[in-house]
Amino acid sequence: MTTARTDLIEHFLRTRRASLDLCAPLQPEDYRIQSMPDVSPPWWNLGHTSWFFAKNILAPRTGYEIDRGLDYALNSYYETHGPRLARAQRGLAPRPTTADVLAWRTTVDARMLELLEGDDDQDPTTLELLTTTGIHHEQQHQELLVTEIKHILGWNIEALRAPYRDEQPSVATTALPLEWRAFEPGLHAFGNCEGGWCWDNELPVHRGYVEAFALANRLVTNEEYLEFVEDGGYRDPLLWLANGWAAVVARGWQAPLYWERTASGDWRTWTFGGMRPLRLENPVTHVSYYEADAYANWMARSRGIAGLRLPAEREWELAARTQGFDHRTGNFLDDDTLEPRAAIANDGPLLQLAGDAWEWTSNHYEPYPGYRPFEGTLMEYNGKFMDNQRVLRGGSCATPRSHIRCSYRNFWPADTRFQFTGIRLARSL
Amino acid sequence: MTTARTDLIEHFLRTRRASLDLCAPLQPEDYRIQSMPDVSPPWWNLGHTSWFFAKNILAPRTGYEIDRGLDYALNSYYETHGPRLARAQRGLAPRPTTADVLAWRTTVDARMLELLEGDDDQDPTTLELLTTTGIHHEQQHQELLVTEIKHILGWNIEALRAPYRDEQPSVATTALPLEWRAFEPGLHAFGNCEGGWCWDNELPVHRGYVEAFALANRLVTNEEYLEFVEDGGYRDPLLWLANGWAAVVARGWQAPLYWERTASGDWRTWTFGGMRPLRLENPVTHVSYYEADAYANWMARSRGIAGLRLPAEREWELAARTQGFDHRTGNFLDDDTLEPRAAIANDGPLLQLAGDAWEWTSNHYEPYPGYRPFEGTLMEYNGKFMDNQRVLRGGSCATPRSHIRCSYRNFWPADTRFQFTGIRLARSL
Amino acid sequence: MTTARTDLIEHFLRTRRASLDLCAPLQPEDYRIQSMPDVSPPWWNLGHTSWFFAKNILAPRTGYEIDRGLDYALNSYYETHGPRLARAQRGLAPRPTTADVLAWRTTVDARMLELLEGDDDQDPTTLELLTTTGIHHEQQHQELLVTEIKHILGWNIEALRAPYRDEQPSVATTALPLEWRAFEPGLHAFGNCEGGWCWDNELPVHRGYVEAFALANRLVTNEEYLEFVEDGGYRDPLLWLANGWAAVVARGWQAPLYWERTASGDWRTWTFGGMRPLRLENPVTHVSYYEADAYANWMARSRGIAGLRLPAEREWELAARTQGFDHRTGNFLDDDTLEPRAAIANDGPLLQLAGDAWEWTSNHYEPYPGYRPFEGTLMEYNGKFMDNQRVLRGGSCATPRSHIRCSYRNFWPADTRFQFTGIRLARSL
Amino acid sequence: MTTARTDLIEHFLRTRRASLDLCAPLQPEDYRIQSMPDVSPPWWNLGHTSWFFAKNILAPRTGYEIDRGLDYALNSYYETHGPRLARAQRGLAPRPTTADVLAWRTTVDARMLELLEGDDDQDPTTLELLTTTGIHHEQQHQELLVTEIKHILGWNIEALRAPYRDEQPSVATTALPLEWRAFEPGLHAFGNCEGGWCWDNELPVHRGYVEAFALANRLVTNEEYLEFVEDGGYRDPLLWLANGWAAVVARGWQAPLYWERTASGDWRTWTFGGMRPLRLENPVTHVSYYEADAYANWMARSRGIAGLRLPAEREWELAARTQGFDHRTGNFLDDDTLEPRAAIANDGPLLQLAGDAWEWTSNHYEPYPGYRPFEGTLMEYNGKFMDNQRVLRGGSCATPRSHIRCSYRNFWPADTRFQFTGIRLARSL
Repeated sequence: MTTARTDLIEHFLRTRRASLDLCAPLQPEDYRIQSMPDVSPPWWNLGHTSWFFAKNILAPRTGYEIDRGLDYALNSYYETHGPRLARAQRGLAPRPTTADVLAWRTTVDARMLELLEGDDDQDPTTLELLTTTGIHHEQQHQELLVTEIKHILGWNIEALRAPYRDEQPSVATTALPLEWRAFEPGLHAFGNCEGGWCWDNELPVHRGYVEAFALANRLVTNEEYLEFVEDGGYRDPLLWLANGWAAVVARGWQAPLYWERTASGDWRTWTFGGMRPLRLENPVTHVSYYEADAYANWMARSRGIAGLRLPAEREWELAARTQGFDHRTGNFLDDDTLEPRAAIANDGPLLQLAGDAWEWTSNHYEPYPGYRPFEGTLMEYNGKFMDNQRVLRGGSCATPRSHIRCSYRNFWPADTRFQFTGIRLARSL
Repeated sequence: MTTARTDLIEHFLRTRRASLDLCAPLQPEDYRIQSMPDVSPPWWNLGHTSWFFAKNILAPRTGYEIDRGLDYALNSYYETHGPRLARAQRGLAPRPTTADVLAWRTTVDARMLELLEGDDDQDPTTLELLTTTGIHHEQQHQELLVTEIKHILGWNIEALRAPYRDEQPSVATTALPLEWRAFEPGLHAFGNCEGGWCWDNELPVHRGYVEAFALANRLVTNEEYLEFVEDGGYRDPLLWLANGWAAVVARGWQAPLYWERTASGDWRTWTFGGMRPLRLENPVTHVSYYEADAYANWMARSRGIAGLRLPAEREWELAARTQGFDHRTGNFLDDDTLEPRAAIANDGPLLQLAGDAWEWTSNHYEPYPGYRPFEGTLMEYNGKFMDNQRVLRGGSCATPRSHIRCSYRNFWPADTRFQFTGIRLARSL
Repeated sequence: MTTARTDLIEHFLRTRRASLDLCAPLQPEDYRIQSMPDVSPPWWNLGHTSWFFAKNILAPRTGYEIDRGLDYALNSYYETHGPRLARAQRGLAPRPTTADVLAWRTTVDARMLELLEGDDDQDPTTLELLTTTGIHHEQQHQELLVTEIKHILGWNIEALRAPYRDEQPSVATTALPLEWRAFEPGLHAFGNCEGGWCWDNELPVHRGYVEAFALANRLVTNEEYLEFVEDGGYRDPLLWLANGWAAVVARGWQAPLYWERTASGDWRTWTFGGMRPLRLENPVTHVSYYEADAYANWMARSRGIAGLRLPAEREWELAARTQGFDHRTGNFLDDDTLEPRAAIANDGPLLQLAGDAWEWTSNHYEPYPGYRPFEGTLMEYNGKFMDNQRVLRGGSCATPRSHIRCSYRNFWPADTRFQFTGIRLARSL
Repeated sequence: MTTARTDLIEHFLRTRRASLDLCAPLQPEDYRIQSMPDVSPPWWNLGHTSWFFAKNILAPRTGYEIDRGLDYALNSYYETHGPRLARAQRGLAPRPTTADVLAWRTTVDARMLELLEGDDDQDPTTLELLTTTGIHHEQQHQELLVTEIKHILGWNIEALRAPYRDEQPSVATTALPLEWRAFEPGLHAFGNCEGGWCWDNELPVHRGYVEAFALANRLVTNEEYLEFVEDGGYRDPLLWLANGWAAVVARGWQAPLYWERTASGDWRTWTFGGMRPLRLENPVTHVSYYEADAYANWMARSRGIAGLRLPAEREWELAARTQGFDHRTGNFLDDDTLEPRAAIANDGPLLQLAGDAWEWTSNHYEPYPGYRPFEGTLMEYNGKFMDNQRVLRGGSCATPRSHIRCSYRNFWPADTRFQFTGIRLARSL
């Protein structure tokens, strides 16, 4: 076996184990809950990631036949693969049981191992490519597992919430002052310039011209966002996109998701360790695009800074690529610290680019010029969702470290709040 | 201790145990599923019935303090008791866990026993009355448990259904021919004439005049109903109430709930033992009021019998009371046969009055003249639901035997299909 | 021509003219508005009443062909007559124009006259019966016209409301004290005992037994209802049916429809003459069944009168029949006073039985024992709506006088408020 | 008076008159209809355009007080101006009457004239700027009037449709063959490079780099689109964006809006002159973004052309600017021919860039880098809608000629079909 193959097997096994490890603290009940339509129950994430390997690799290569019930239940959105359990009904299905799903993971792992370790005459490159894709797919679901578990355990009244684990809060500190890093106008390459495996939506590498801009050296903190909240930001329609204001009114938003004000006026927030006082120096998270955009508008108005806004996707990528984006320095899921941390180092470059919180950009999710979807059934993976969503960049404390890179494009609808989504400010110069 | 008290304790313990016995075949997943808003997850039924004793007896009499989370989660609809988990969200709550709920049952049972066995100086009559009410309340939830479990296990595609237990179908037989039993016009007493404990909605005993009518000797069979289906009954709006036709169109009804036609044209139906060929001689069940009414209209038209219709509530009660209603002869939950059985005996009286299937009457659910709700918080038990529902009489194979009596009034919205609801025909003479 | 025929022609012409007279004060815009799904635009009422004569009489008897567009647009709910303009879309149709509809009225009137005045060899009895039915049908739509116009002109903010006509309010007076009239228990005949033309839902005459009860001598006044409002009646769920409380919460009900409290705390209400101070001595109107029921519950509790409630349909009919129900004395549409008046006479009998306001009874709308729908397409007129509605008795200030009688059964869903609906209290004795 | 001022007055008067001219063929009923929530009734367009002048110019400059009812009814979406008639309720308001609105137009025109002709010491530049803005605003509503009238008159069954006017179809011809015009990659300026008045969303002029691409010489024809329809394009989910496929399923789309297939299989479509056979050589219109995108995907697949797609906004603008975009040659509203015409000339440049149909681009509607909204209340004009909409370029047969220019950005949600929206294909090279 080649080293590459050995590494791949190791990566496969490590990734598969990591999904189970994330679920280790759960009670049997927690596996079955779909606390809102966007949140899949953990059993489903565990099953669907197995299905991805079985359907895209085992079935076509080995003739493996997937049980009809599992096939129906675990197809996410592939029209190519026919009828399936509706997304909003994942929490209504008592079968497959969690035990069924866990047993099936073992089966799929064993057959994958057999395939990866065996003499593979049929196009080993494709096998490796698809396995890598499956690993990255599972990593995406690990982030979902974390953020969905947070919602499952925390959506109800406090007396019915349950902490995920006995986690200590990070040590109190002070966030760095906000500073601006300026960038010259210029023509640059964008997309997966660094090479290596990536999603189809990061390609092709293409050129783009960026006008002069500046980016904040760090993410907006809870303390800064709190000023917006207490200044009436959620009551002034002129700060909001029309759809954003409609969401504020319809859903009664008054602060980020999981924030609660106590009778005495203090703010607390839901964490994996339970309800905790709001850490002012930490990055604000669980804000929708609408809130991020309204906050930028409020800052522009209250600070008198014309052109203050959210960064464009290209601005972010250019800055990250040239200011030392390093996923090794970030605060990611693999650190086992499920909490965004304050920016404290101050050695010049942009801080918090990787880890802590996904950063909303001002761009809708669109294909790059010359975009080609993956071949075969994976053509449904990204392209068909390039409509009415916003791009996020960077990675969060719930993202697996090896999953992230400078050209990575995350995307969510503008009203999404259950992810670790934060705000970095930008300015036109 | 008095014999009455001893009997009460015994009845209490037996009832509490029966609820657990009904859940014995379930997988952990099954306890948490709310397959449609009307269906509460089994954990909730087990918890709510404990809460009923704790809230109405233990708390006011012993100062027992209910855990705040349990109190919030397990209050069904009592405005008196304040905010609560919304009904449609019972399937979204991971806490309390099933283990929590089972442990709490033990606690409540122990405290109830202590109370019932102790020297009770404070108004023993009320204690006994409330305990009896709690027992009957739990019996209602046993019927719900059975019918809701049937839905939970059976709503999905066949490959994802799971049988409740390995139950053998009843022995094939032939249903008796349909015959009419005539009743003279006259003034009669209605309500709980037999005395004993009853719900407030069965009182007061009052007089009512009934014109001449006849009642079918047995329930409508699957075979008879199938003729209606195959004659296009679900495609002819003139047979239906306007709201019924709207339901047919909006929900695509083409047959009773759980019926499925195979590719070869055979009918099968979902039972506790799995999918089974439709037993033609058995009573049709899982029909809404609208379907029952449309069937009667179709019979009137196709058989040319003017005045053929569903029975009025009083007609049913009069017939049952005078034709030997006997809950001991019925086919009830305690028989452990969760299937309506064919009518085969033929000794004159009306058959299938008790057990097998609840019988839709033509009356909306209204208070009897002079109705007084229960005192205290139990005033919310029945009265506030006397609006836009239909009365059913008799009891089904999912009803506990000791729960049923001639004056019992069950009630459901007219579009309900997940209960064991059937059809007995009547005629004006 | 017989006198009967001459009278019928005169009644036909008078009725047809009355519909137009009701619309005389309208602006062209007012004819087209469907201010809520329940409210048909006036053009539609004018057209549909013509269609009723054309479809049920002219077409089958004379071969008259109805224009396809009119036929589609003006069919209300007759499945027998095929596809039709959806009820909720009547306000979205620019055609037929109001001028088209008015011209077609003339055509239909001319052809009806020709038929009624001609030698009619084919079954003159049926012709007269159907014509009479059409006249009563049009009278029902006259009441709808009045109440719908009130809503069309008044639903918006005050600056965009328009009075229907320059109507003077009635002279201020004082309402009679509330007194109870007692009735013995007994067996009585119900239904159209007086004979003459009636709807199928008033037949057959049948017997019913009524327990002892008492009825209030007059309707509940605005002043009395205001006490309920100001005592927090709309904030106490224990007074309401569950569906009623859900309506209160979902729709924000705080008082009857059209009531508004000014900044200074005074109550005003929308009338045909514009916004007017609330006349305290007048009967309360524009209350739903839920409000009527909650008011009765509040009265029972606050006055300590057990058994205080709304009257049953039979109680009302018995009382009206024996206490001198006289539609000649009522305050009806023909008086041209579109305002309920205070009860002031005091000669013993029950007051305000006919005219002023429809009285909610505690009964759902159901067929009488032995009910037979009209023959032919008119079978869809009443029977299919006998589901989840409540019966009202008596007639209102918007009802044509010759349309009302002691056995008349009006019916509306329990949450209806745009009709002139009021409250008479009853008690079990 | 300066010539500029005289010209402005003339433009103002001409524009105001043009709105009335467009409504001249209407019946009184047509002015009041809101055939779907997106469609405002014509009275409202006539009133709102007057309100725009009154609110933004007359009120602040002359102290003119707008009637409270008009102010409430005619505010479209300006949060700055307070509560207003909900958009979906414009068709429910009987007041103001059409006569009221027309009279108010005269008043507003007279006061505007007085102001424009008078000695205006206060900032004449701003007066002229705002008046010009009001003129362009009214031109936008003229396009809405045309397209909304088409829907109002045509949404119902054929027997209830009414032609707008007796319009002759264009002369039959043959569309030019589809050819590709190639463009080199390069850096270019975008936005309102030509100068002159424009909307805030066309600024600032900024640089952008465009990779090599080609554009079709003309719009897609009905004949070409029909091939997609008949090849099953509406039944293959793999051709569609996920949101697009959801729309196809939920709304039953099978062809563009207004297309109908007769019993004999011929296609007809709704035009201002009535139902007409589909003109195969004319540009397809009334397609949503989703349909345009699916068509491009189908073309790429069926013709085997990788990279075939819809044009990006910048590609369109670059091509139009350099290939002789000329709004004088287009087929616009001012030609009085309310029908897109076939492309027949063939002198090299791109055809149908201006007029006929708006062209969907592949870009969501976003601010240009450095975007500044208009000052004051007009800040709500564009910016707050830059979310989840797609940009269209070019202008349609319903656009006033003097309203259009190369940098103009139209925008609609991706599921919009009632505008004259068409398809131009593009390719990455």
